[in-house]
Amino acid sequence: MKSRLLPALVALTLAGTAAAQVKPEDAIKWRQSGYGFMAWNMARIKMNVEGQFNKDEVIKAANAIQAIANSGMGALYLPGTDKGTGWEKTRAKPEIWTEKEKLTKAGGAFNKEANEMAKVAATGDAAAVKEQFGKLSATCKGCHDDFKAKD
Amino acid sequence: MKSRLLPALVALTLAGTAAAQVKPEDAIKWRQSGYGFMAWNMARIKMNVEGQFNKDEVIKAANAIQAIANSGMGALYLPGTDKGTGWEKTRAKPEIWTEKEKLTKAGGAFNKEANEMAKVAATGDAAAVKEQFGKLSATCKGCHDDFKAKD
Repeated sequence: MKSRLLPALVALTLAGTAAAQVKPEDAIKWRQSGYGFMAWNMARIKMNVEGQFNKDEVIKAANAIQAIANSGMGALYLPGTDKGTGWEKTRAKPEIWTEKEKLTKAGGAFNKEANEMAKVAATGDAAAVKEQFGKLSATCKGCHDDFKAKD
Repeated sequence: MKSRLLPALVALTLAGTAAAQVKPEDAIKWRQSGYGFMAWNMARIKMNVEGQFNKDEVIKAANAIQAIANSGMGALYLPGTDKGTGWEKTRAKPEIWTEKEKLTKAGGAFNKEANEMAKVAATGDAAAVKEQFGKLSATCKGCHDDFKAKD
């Protein structure tokens, strides 16, 4: 890694050996799985702040999002995976591979808010969770707007 | 929860409000996403113990598996999701809903080994990671053999 600040999400390299063993369709499926699982956990946090608040459930959801955010998913954006099908056709925009500075910034913002979400969840403060959920959601949306195709 | 030992994976209930808001096809997609993301992280650990060992990558992978294992995925096995399509047609066997004791045991074994995997990964001991990877894989296979259809 170039610096400790470079978020794992956008570390677009893999050790040569490991990368060579990963099929493009698996890489696409695995990253879609990461986002799909985060979607559940975001939905859960939303249901908890809008309905009955269950501290333990929010902690589990926030921890899952945090671990996925810090897992180094950027490694799944291998060359040749700008097109192709995992669970479904990839919606990754070409800008992922061309606008690295912007992507690094977006990924860093997401990681920061995901880490903060886990900290806030641990306090059990429903109002603070709601506020942090808004901040985290905004970083998801920001990245989707720039790097994920609508269709 | 009935007891502190009941693993989150097999907690087959949801708060009424939350469950009512979850569509069966989403529940199936989200649980397939969880397994899909764990598959990547298992593959990564395997590549690391068979090839060049990168402690940080193994820690990230183990932490992701641990957080997903403890996220309470059992909540996604809602009534009515024994059939249906998420990313693909569900391969959940009917036994998930009928053999609760066996499922609880299988889920508990998986959670135990996933938690241990995260601890072992943190030590950076490649040989110990390899051994624990074997134990964890066995719990995955055990559950798949009993509760996941082949096709």
